[in-house]
Order: sequence, then C-alpha cells, then structure tokens
Amino acid sequence: MNTVKYNTLSANPETEACELKNHIGETIRLHGAVYKIRRMSGFAFVLIRMRDAIVQSVYSEKFASFPLNLLAEEACVRLTAQVVAEERSRTGYELRLMEAQVLSAPCEELPIVINQKKVNTSLENLLDYRPVTLRNEKERAIFRIQAAICTAFREFLNREHFTEIHSPKIAAIGAEGGANIFKLPYFEKEAYLAQSPQFYKQMMVGVFERVYEIAPVFRAEKHDTSRHLNEYTSVDFEMGYIESFEEIMATENRMLRYCIDFLREHCSDLLTLLGCTLPQIEEIPQIPFASAKEWIANSCKRKITDMLDFEPEEERLLCELVKKETGSELVFVTHYPSAKRPFYAMDNPQNPEETLSFDLLFRGLEITTGGQRIHSYKEQIEKLHARGMHEELFESYLMLHKYGVAPHGGLGLGLERFTAQLLGFENVRSATLFPRDIHRLIP
Amino acid sequence: MNTVKYNTLSANPETEACELKNHIGETIRLHGAVYKIRRMSGFAFVLIRMRDAIVQSVYSEKFASFPLNLLAEEACVRLTAQVVAEERSRTGYELRLMEAQVLSAPCEELPIVINQKKVNTSLENLLDYRPVTLRNEKERAIFRIQAAICTAFREFLNREHFTEIHSPKIAAIGAEGGANIFKLPYFEKEAYLAQSPQFYKQMMVGVFERVYEIAPVFRAEKHDTSRHLNEYTSVDFEMGYIESFEEIMATENRMLRYCIDFLREHCSDLLTLLGCTLPQIEEIPQIPFASAKEWIANSCKRKITDMLDFEPEEERLLCELVKKETGSELVFVTHYPSAKRPFYAMDNPQNPEETLSFDLLFRGLEITTGGQRIHSYKEQIEKLHARGMHEELFESYLMLHKYGVAPHGGLGLGLERFTAQLLGFENVRSATLFPRDIHRLIP
Repeated sequence: MNTVKYNTLSANPETEACELKNHIGETIRLHGAVYKIRRMSGFAFVLIRMRDAIVQSVYSEKFASFPLNLLAEEACVRLTAQVVAEERSRTGYELRLMEAQVLSAPCEELPIVINQKKVNTSLENLLDYRPVTLRNEKERAIFRIQAAICTAFREFLNREHFTEIHSPKIAAIGAEGGANIFKLPYFEKEAYLAQSPQFYKQMMVGVFERVYEIAPVFRAEKHDTSRHLNEYTSVDFEMGYIESFEEIMATENRMLRYCIDFLREHCSDLLTLLGCTLPQIEEIPQIPFASAKEWIANSCKRKITDMLDFEPEEERLLCELVKKETGSELVFVTHYPSAKRPFYAMDNPQNPEETLSFDLLFRGLEITTGGQRIHSYKEQIEKLHARGMHEELFESYLMLHKYGVAPHGGLGLGLERFTAQLLGFENVRSATLFPRDIHRLIP
Repeated sequence: MNTVKYNTLSANPETEACELKNHIGETIRLHGAVYKIRRMSGFAFVLIRMRDAIVQSVYSEKFASFPLNLLAEEACVRLTAQVVAEERSRTGYELRLMEAQVLSAPCEELPIVINQKKVNTSLENLLDYRPVTLRNEKERAIFRIQAAICTAFREFLNREHFTEIHSPKIAAIGAEGGANIFKLPYFEKEAYLAQSPQFYKQMMVGVFERVYEIAPVFRAEKHDTSRHLNEYTSVDFEMGYIESFEEIMATENRMLRYCIDFLREHCSDLLTLLGCTLPQIEEIPQIPFASAKEWIANSCKRKITDMLDFEPEEERLLCELVKKETGSELVFVTHYPSAKRPFYAMDNPQNPEETLSFDLLFRGLEITTGGQRIHSYKEQIEKLHARGMHEELFESYLMLHKYGVAPHGGLGLGLERFTAQLLGFENVRSATLFPRDIHRLIP
C-alpha cells in the first residue's frame, strides 16, 4: 500500500539563546522575532526575542548579505549568524548577522511600545493589548515564573505521593455555597461552575489518600478590587490519615520551601530581571485568629469592627507585625470562626465556635485557605441541619462520609495571588495571563 | 510575642506498601482502609487498601491484641504489624496484625460490592456510585495511570521547551464556533465556556514560541455516544517556527513514545492489573484523508456517503487496515477538507479544498485534532470574510496576526479518550473520573 508514509522524527536543529556561548567561532542558524533595532553610525544592534532570552546581534553591511530595512520590529525571522569572540561584550561573544529570511512581518506599527525595559502604560491598556504586551521581556518573564511555580508544586506533590486528579468544572451544586456562583443552562437542567474542587478532592481521599489538582475555579463575586478575579487557577490538595490539621500546614510549608528553592535554581535570571527578592521560608509561624485580631487592635490602636473576619487592612498590618516580630513574610492564621467557614469545616472539639482551619497570609494578602474537614457522617449531617441545609442535595458527596473516610483536610492556594505577592505586584491581574473580572471578558 | 508559634515539619512516619519488603523481621505501623476480610478456620486474611497497593495481612488471635470484629470493610485504620519472612508467600513475607486503631467506620453496608477483582455492575451504576466504586483496585488503577500520562506529557513538553499556560475558560467568543457551545450570563454580559484554548495558545506562540496547557474544555454537543463527553480534559500544545505541519505530527509522535516508555517504567503493575498491552509506537504512519476514504471504500466494499468526514465505522475500519498493513495501532490522517475545519486552519497552497491538518486515530478512534494555523493577517481576514464571519468579533485574537507571528500549529488531544483507547475500554466514560454528558451532572 503506497498511501501510507512515515514521518521523520527530527528535532529542531536551530540554536537556542542559552547555547550560543558554546558556538564561538562557528556559523549558526537561529530564529526569533526582531525585538528592537538600534541604529548606530555605520552599523546597528538588532535585539532578537528568542524563546529563552532576548539576544543582541550586530548588523553591518560588512557581514550581512541583506539590507537592514528587511528587518522590522516584530518580524519573525530565521537568521544565519557568526558567533565571534568579543572580550568587550558582557556575554563574551558578538553575534554577527549574515543572512536573514523573513517568515512573517507585522502589518501595522504596534499600538504600544513593548521593547523598552517596561511597558509604560496603564494596567487597563496592558491587559487590553495582552497578545502584544506579553511580548515584552519583563511581562513574559512573569508567566515563565508562574509555569515554574506549577512545575515545582507538582514535583513536590508527586514526591509526597499525591495523585493528580481532574474534577469536573460543571457541577450540579456549588461547594462553597452563597451567591458567588455562576449559573448556566445545561441541556434541560441548571448547572453551576465549580467554585472549587472541594467535594471531588474529598471523595478522592477515599480512593488515593492524597490528591491534588491545579485547575481553574470560578467565583461570581462582584468585588472590583486589586485582589479579586472571577476565574483563577487554584492549586488544591487534600490528604487523608492526618492526625491534626497542623499536618496540612506543615505540608504547605514544605511545598512552598520546595517551590522557592526550585525558583532559585531554575529562574534566577528571570527573578533578577523582575527585581524580585524571594522570601526566606523556614518554619512559617502561626497565630490563632482571635489572638491576631487582638494583637492588631492593641498594636495598631484600631477598633475591631468585624469579629468574624479580617479586613484587608488588618491582613496587611498583621503581616507587618509578624515580620517585625519573627522576620517571616508568611504567617498561618488558625482557628477561624465557625460562622465564616463552610459546612464541611471541622469545628474545634475544644471550642465549637471556631474551626480547625487556617489561612496563609503572604506579604499582606491571603493566598491560601485550608483546614480539616468533617469525616464523620453523623457530624456532617448535624452540621448541615444546623445550617438549614438539605442533605438530599449532597447525596453523592455524602457517600464519602457514609461509607467511611479517614480524617482528612487540605487547602486551596490561588496561583495568581501567590505569583503576584512573590513578584511584589499591587494587583493580582498583573500575574494573570488573561484576567476575568466583573468588567473584563476580553481578550 | 507569645502567640506566634512554629509548625513542626515532619513527614509521615508510617510505612508504604512498596516499602514493606524492606522491613522483614520488624514491627511497623501502617494505615489504610479495610478492603476485604476473608475468614478462614482459626484465622483471617485482611486485605488493606493502602495508598499504593492492596496488601494482604493475617489476623490471628495468637498475635492480635484486638478482636477481628473491630474491623469492618471500608473502615479506615492505623495498624501495628509484624513483617515476618514467609517463603510460601508471593511477596516473601507475611504481615501479622498486632494492634488496630479504627479512625472511621462506614455507617452502612456498601450499595455495591467493590472488593472483587472487578466491580460487577452497569456503567450507569459504576458512575452513579463513583465515590465508592473508585475504591475498587482496578477502578482506581485507571486514574493512577491517567495521572502518570499527564506527568509524562508535561515532562516531555517541558524538555522540548514548551511553556505551560493557564488560559481562561470563560470567554467572550468560542474558538470552534457552531452551536456546540455552553452560554452563561456573566454579570451584564453573555459569555461562553471555552471549547478549546485555541485563540489563547496561538496568542502565546507570539510570546513563548511553544506553549501547552492541560485543562478542561466544554462542548455542548447533544451526542449521546460512547465517545462523547460534554466536559473533558484537553492536552493542547502549539508551536511556532514550524517549517511544515508535519513537525507537529513528529512532535506528537515523540510525545506519545515518551509517554508509553514512561508508563512501561512507572506503571507496569497497574497495567498488568488492568490487562493492558501498550501499543508499539515507532514512526506513526500517515495517510491523506482522500486516500483513506478511497482505501476503506475499496477494501471494505463500502459506499462513501460523506466525502468531508469519516463515519465512526470508517475510523474503525481504517485502523484495522493500517494495522494489517503496517502493524501500527495509530495512524495520522492528513489533509482534511477545508469545509470541515475551522476558520483558522491553513489551507494547502497546492489544493485550497484541503487543509494542512491532521487527526490521529488510535485503535479505531480519533484522539487528536491538529494542524497548521494561518499566520498571515491578510489571509486570515480573507478566510473570515469568505465564511461570512465578522472580524470585529475577533479583534484581540487578530492582534496576533496583525502584529506578526511565526508560522505555527498545534493540536489538542483528549486525555480521557487516549486513556480509554490505551486501556481498551468501549466507553470513554470508563476513563473519566466524574463524566459530564447530556444526562449526567452528578456526582
């Protein structure tokens, strides 16, 4: 049969930016986008945005077989170049352009200057023109770091015997309840977008003991603040056979240390580019919610207006106090009031007004919510009833408790918030590829 | 300040199933769920469902400090046991139970027997009782393999310099168009659930050259078949600077080989348990759509009724023919008709009736759709107009083309379909943790 043919399994033979220094004295081929052309007298510097770095090349009629005006900013090109040893260069070599093939060229000048150190525009513009502004060196560095954070989290969780799951995002009922839930028609029924993988990761504790998921979650919150998104990426894990809810915090503590070490090892150039100082994470201190409230009130001479939750300003102040006291930029706040936690949270047997739960604050912002869950069927039914909720709605979820599950708990960490706090951004949108908020659905 | 305290960073000190053989002659602690109790005369075998395997232990009043009826099936327990060398055992040791602590016990008998080799019930029941049926040894093995598949894909893509992205699932417009799209009210606007990350991954080619995402996608298809889901996990990648669309196929070919090797190395026990034979993947053969149509018609004496697409039966027959001819269980079908491919697909310059696209068929089912995309602004606008589409709707997507992007293409692979075909299942739902279909929204 002649019609079947085979594919040649070849890898791309072109040189990566990080390999250039190994080719001094050679003629190589590379590809990338023209990032910036700096015309000097008699020659030009041409900055190439390669996959892994912005690389400077030199154009001169002496070496090049093509006119400089062949190259436009944001044109995608294949280049032949000589890598010549050059002591005066920071890299130890100079890249001399010899041949160029233009693969595509922009039709219009860019609406925003993207090839300066920083894109100088409003956040609104930055987000409106995402397909273009992300091409800026610093902008794209943010999301390469975010990818590394995910890789680090997964590596850590796999090593600690967590199994990755994929839970559905369209559901018959929301885990977190309340009004902050997106509804949609689902054939003849009404459905909801998952506010968290809560029910599913708990069900899976009965199967794998330890599970995790890094996936989108949806919150129809009408808040229009610098820290809220209506869709974000949640890093969720859940673990069984815990002896206390502190094991969950200990696991997160190790996960974050692992992540910071990973970034230090793999992303130092990107972190330097963004001027980011990684936090020192040793053992993260913890403080009960009620004590924290009191501490802030006393130290900062503030009146407590909400005994059940923090105001954003209080989270900032607490982080300042903790940093001054312990040096840590992270703090676990524990034992949140039962009234403010969902129906599946386990109450403290010593004080049923509070839960065996925690938030993790990082540089002034909550990035994680977690805690131990109720595993006893009787206890869960009682708590549902006490809240006036209908157990019939939770029938499949409650199979978990009815047919036996080990003591367990877990957490959810907001990937974009963590990235934003790590990089010192004012607004979580700066660490979100294509943010969704009450006003923004495009791009 | 006395209220701040520190968390002890300890790992779980209990023994894992895979480590038991290293503790012969020792007394160890372990935890798990009682999977099955087999009463013999004067003693009992107690199977423990541990995180990583089902382990057999022996209960006898001679060793144990507790009565056997303390243990109920599906109770979660902590156990102290002696690991005693035993030549007659397949494992080389016997696990003698000494002490038991019951952490939780089921309130009711299970609605379905799950501790036989296989759960003997209908697929409907299997899915209705997912929180319970997944506890079966074989059922959970499926999803541990699925987790390994994802790990392998990510490892491969990271090594090949792809960057992971997180694109929004709520969007202002669908990439694939058509009626198969879920709508939802989004504050004052109307929004859609992403049918694929198509637009976003293409935009990100302009930023990172190579990107991937493993995330849920949503299709409001009314099909009620064994191969359709309304929500599934899509493994998407997109790569720039390609010289032909065959590079995309070559990359998928390498990715699948990497995955199969990874499974062979890390999941051999699970694959044996499920009776799965991994496919031999060398160079996957390829055949143009039109030739494949003709081949099937001629070889199987079938009339061609749809010149633009395959019928499911034709996909099955083609795979049989290819396997007989080449030995391969996979085949790339290339050059699908333009009329059946989306507006962003690049037409074949030699024949604009067909596209530079492909599907990958595996054991009779399409598991991947991919191809080269239009990168020229002019060409893309023309194709939009030719289809009567309005470019205003695609303004931010078209920034990609307008401001320059390299020749590029990519693919989407259905994770559940791939898992199902790999494991030889008739129905894709068998390889879906919590399937969503036209009838099913629970659990």
